[in-house]
Amino acid sequence: MSFVIDFEPIGTRLICEEPVLLRDAATRAGVPLKSVCGGKTTCGKCLVRVTGTALSSVTEAERLLLSDAEIAAGYRQACRTLVSGDVSVYIPPSSLVEEQKLQLEGTETPVEIDPLVRKFCVTVPPATLADQRGDFDRTAAALREQHGIALSRADVPALAQLSAALRGETLRFAQGDSQQPQGDKQHPVMLSEAKHLDGKWTVTVAVRDGELIGSEPGDTTATAVGLAVDLGTTKIACYLVDLLTGRLLAARGVMNPQIGYGEDVIARIEAAGKDETVRLHLRQIVVAAINEAAADLCQGAGIAPAEMLEITVVGNTAMHHLILGLPVQQLGVLPFVPVTAQPLDVKCATLGLVAAPGATVHFPPPIAGFVGSDHVAVLLASAFGQDDRTRLAIDLGTNTEIALQARGRIRSCSTACGPAFEGAHIKFGMRAAPGAIERVKIDGKSGQVRIATIGGKPPVGICGSGILDAVAELLKAGWLNERGRLNAVAPPIRPGENGLGREVVLAEGSPDGGREVVLTQHDLGEIQLAKGAIRAGINILMEEMNVRPQDIDEVIIAGAFGTYLDPFNAVRLGLFPPMPLSRFRQVGNAAGVGARQALVSRRARAQAAQLARQVDYLELTLHPHFAQRFAEGMHFSI
Amino acid sequence: MSFVIDFEPIGTRLICEEPVLLRDAATRAGVPLKSVCGGKTTCGKCLVRVTGTALSSVTEAERLLLSDAEIAAGYRQACRTLVSGDVSVYIPPSSLVEEQKLQLEGTETPVEIDPLVRKFCVTVPPATLADQRGDFDRTAAALREQHGIALSRADVPALAQLSAALRGETLRFAQGDSQQPQGDKQHPVMLSEAKHLDGKWTVTVAVRDGELIGSEPGDTTATAVGLAVDLGTTKIACYLVDLLTGRLLAARGVMNPQIGYGEDVIARIEAAGKDETVRLHLRQIVVAAINEAAADLCQGAGIAPAEMLEITVVGNTAMHHLILGLPVQQLGVLPFVPVTAQPLDVKCATLGLVAAPGATVHFPPPIAGFVGSDHVAVLLASAFGQDDRTRLAIDLGTNTEIALQARGRIRSCSTACGPAFEGAHIKFGMRAAPGAIERVKIDGKSGQVRIATIGGKPPVGICGSGILDAVAELLKAGWLNERGRLNAVAPPIRPGENGLGREVVLAEGSPDGGREVVLTQHDLGEIQLAKGAIRAGINILMEEMNVRPQDIDEVIIAGAFGTYLDPFNAVRLGLFPPMPLSRFRQVGNAAGVGARQALVSRRARAQAAQLARQVDYLELTLHPHFAQRFAEGMHFSI
Repeated sequence: MSFVIDFEPIGTRLICEEPVLLRDAATRAGVPLKSVCGGKTTCGKCLVRVTGTALSSVTEAERLLLSDAEIAAGYRQACRTLVSGDVSVYIPPSSLVEEQKLQLEGTETPVEIDPLVRKFCVTVPPATLADQRGDFDRTAAALREQHGIALSRADVPALAQLSAALRGETLRFAQGDSQQPQGDKQHPVMLSEAKHLDGKWTVTVAVRDGELIGSEPGDTTATAVGLAVDLGTTKIACYLVDLLTGRLLAARGVMNPQIGYGEDVIARIEAAGKDETVRLHLRQIVVAAINEAAADLCQGAGIAPAEMLEITVVGNTAMHHLILGLPVQQLGVLPFVPVTAQPLDVKCATLGLVAAPGATVHFPPPIAGFVGSDHVAVLLASAFGQDDRTRLAIDLGTNTEIALQARGRIRSCSTACGPAFEGAHIKFGMRAAPGAIERVKIDGKSGQVRIATIGGKPPVGICGSGILDAVAELLKAGWLNERGRLNAVAPPIRPGENGLGREVVLAEGSPDGGREVVLTQHDLGEIQLAKGAIRAGINILMEEMNVRPQDIDEVIIAGAFGTYLDPFNAVRLGLFPPMPLSRFRQVGNAAGVGARQALVSRRARAQAAQLARQVDYLELTLHPHFAQRFAEGMHFSI
Repeated sequence: MSFVIDFEPIGTRLICEEPVLLRDAATRAGVPLKSVCGGKTTCGKCLVRVTGTALSSVTEAERLLLSDAEIAAGYRQACRTLVSGDVSVYIPPSSLVEEQKLQLEGTETPVEIDPLVRKFCVTVPPATLADQRGDFDRTAAALREQHGIALSRADVPALAQLSAALRGETLRFAQGDSQQPQGDKQHPVMLSEAKHLDGKWTVTVAVRDGELIGSEPGDTTATAVGLAVDLGTTKIACYLVDLLTGRLLAARGVMNPQIGYGEDVIARIEAAGKDETVRLHLRQIVVAAINEAAADLCQGAGIAPAEMLEITVVGNTAMHHLILGLPVQQLGVLPFVPVTAQPLDVKCATLGLVAAPGATVHFPPPIAGFVGSDHVAVLLASAFGQDDRTRLAIDLGTNTEIALQARGRIRSCSTACGPAFEGAHIKFGMRAAPGAIERVKIDGKSGQVRIATIGGKPPVGICGSGILDAVAELLKAGWLNERGRLNAVAPPIRPGENGLGREVVLAEGSPDGGREVVLTQHDLGEIQLAKGAIRAGINILMEEMNVRPQDIDEVIIAGAFGTYLDPFNAVRLGLFPPMPLSRFRQVGNAAGVGARQALVSRRARAQAAQLARQVDYLELTLHPHFAQRFAEGMHFSI
């Protein structure tokens, strides 16, 4: 009887067959839990908070180490806690060795830490009747003297904060001040108490390119954080990052609340285009969702959202336009033109994003209407434009972006492959959520189907990696032909209802809440369309750049679905060209990695802007071979 | 029986003794009414809208010229309309020869027209599948090719407007979008229809220092307007200005609605300091008042407020801080330090000011806590720092700012002379409003008092110029001594009630609503304090800079009260040093002139910033001779 350990907020899941020490489970799951004593149970650094009951009892040693309140809250030493059933384990940032590895993250390319915002602690001569210089003016002079930094401009809300900070007060921005426009929901902006209040007239100022963007009483230079956001159509991934070291402090993924207006980009563009109120509402709810996620992240890190000094946001072009309040109608009609393909720096306050008073949100540029800044971030995180390797990057999603670097050029295209791999348009399709079938094995002889679901929950549907598995297993069993027809009627295949073609029974209903989950002939057609579009994009880019499969040094697979898919199966059924599996790198949310790089590095921003200019976008639908490659791509390999 | 003709929106008033042709009245009042035919009644250009009944009937000729609706609205030909009683005359901008001269304006120094925002009409190649560049990107390229102008950045709301403009649509910003935060009252932002819609993909873009700040379909380069604001404690003066020529299109003065929180700056600082909600409310109501005045001005000029491309605001340091949302507590306590003494550029949208999407509001710098950017604007408008003349400028108000230029230096001080000259702290004191006694003549022999009131209304109080007159007349009659005591008891002087000293009866109550208005011994004490403070400031500056009265080439008297005072009387009673009357220049609202110069001229802005740096502020209360000069200054000259 297997059970599941969920590690939060990292999002890693470990499936165990027998009781396990939490510390060992963390090691097996790749969670970098602190262990100063090397597992001798003596250092007390591997504290975690466990939710669940299948645990060994709290030991006397833990009672000595922890307060009653902590024990009541579920805190344990990971090295002393034996788990024998489903539990959820929260790892506080203080118990992590170094940066958390999000499951949705991948290999990071090294990045030079050079954030745009820097903090300086200055001691300012108090104002007197004989020295009536303005607060800003005297602070600027002190900054020049003490740090050689020129302060040439000031953000107005930051100025408001400065006078209070100089006098040893933290200024709270009142709710409802129109200088702090908010999203749908009002978020109080709170400033944490200064960490080291050295007395009045000693302040820490945050400076961005010569502009004062925030100030706090005392010396708070030890803390400097920012937020990187990958704004997806379905999911918003938020990363709290230490600007001094580039370290990831915490990450959090939330659903994009715009989903109520349609699951895909086109639906949102249509909703926004029809009704101005909807367009503005779409903007507000996504801002509110980011504010909420950021507030949670900050709370976990023991800081206030108003301490965040800079934000970067990447996303597809529609998400980019919607959060900026830009019109999107033209993105939904030929020739799919973005409003702008330039990087943008906008004051957080203008958009209603909660951060330091004068903080900026940086938007790396999109490339085209259907190739967004998230793709630029993927390229940035995957070292495109930085070396000479022949590299293919595929960012799988409702729209799949594909880029190919070869011989100093980068070409890119986007395929509207549809959301089949995200579970939409599939009868029992669903996103990768608890209860989704994610793994399928079919015994070609007995017809027996074995499945694994996310969270080990009773099956309620099937997600992309499960679909890919199922198709590959059906092909292997010889029950699915090249043209995508189910050519057998034997368990698990049965005739469909209402003459709608055959269907494969993956799960039978069960009394524990499990639904009957089937894959229909129609579903297989949808999968063929998606596969056909993606493969056509890959093939046309390779043809255009005269690159053969064996020339490719590296295949980057990005995107949530890309993290879970089995490359062997993907190549097997012809989603990808036949390339050695060793060349595949599943990097997960590379867009998030790119967003974080742009957050902490001036140079990474410049590279992103350069990539967006450099990438040669190929409009597939205009390509003379597209229809043919699409038709070819729909075929399954046998 | 005299009557009054009010000319609006100029604010000029003409008092007439006998029936007069409106055209002649306008000439006498200095209103530059159009008259192409030279008064022959044939051109039909001198149309005005008259409110009132004491008029000659509408002539047949006018019935031919005007529509019934226009006649019903009160439109008349000024050259055909005889006025015989109180009327109010509105001069539409189309009937003005050239710029309106506000009564509150004065001599303007010439200014180089070089606004920060310029408009360009560009024809942009339409987007196609083969050319999917972003709207901004293709517009920037066209602007570079067609005008040699580099567009390096874009304001986000301006970008939102651009895509619509390129497609021949005007984008209305919806109310309640948090990107357009508003003041207390929501103002719909309306765009007028494009003047010359040359078809799609021809747009006019507004560019400020390489940033796109607005766009309209078609060619609208003929119109480019901005708003200059002199934000006073009592009054807000708004000027709509043509940015292409520097011409004043229209002006409007409204009361500062903050007055509900106290008449003087200190009361507002206290109210704002005590309660954060009040501070924010003070900001919002003043923004709403400016928006309302600007909307009226724009309506008169036939444009939409969203067409205004730039705003400048000058004001005393408390008004400056309050509209910016900066804290003001520190302005009310020693050592009276401003938050900043730097020029500030802020997006209008951030403050809730309605203008073009990306328009900026420029705030010239204040000098010190009690010497604001309005004083800088006065100096700018009065050519301080631009020549070698020895010049004294006195901006009379609740706080009176005094500046002296001599031998290449400018020194400045501020005296908290109190609001006596604005009518406060005076038993029957009032601002210069209808019914205020503004002129007083006393016959020393008969004791007869003759008065003139503003608007010829029954007297209800006395304003600054009336107070000054009354004091001068009492001195002349020998009824007031050097130390400020009323030393006679004969009409119009009588013993006060409750033993509170003597009082002068200036007006007896009358059945038509006139009140009894008296000037008390206590009032005279208040006037002495105000006079003492102002004279002390003047004398100390002159001593410090070693300047004698006869050295001064020019005396600039600015401020509303300054416009109405009689320099002869002011010198006579010792408010000002004995200087030849020919050297006095009463420039009225010079701060407004300076604000307009900063609006249309990059160079004027630089001069203002330079002036603020250059001016050497002298804190009077710290000066060793202040107490003595103050005591001396309280004495009346005989």
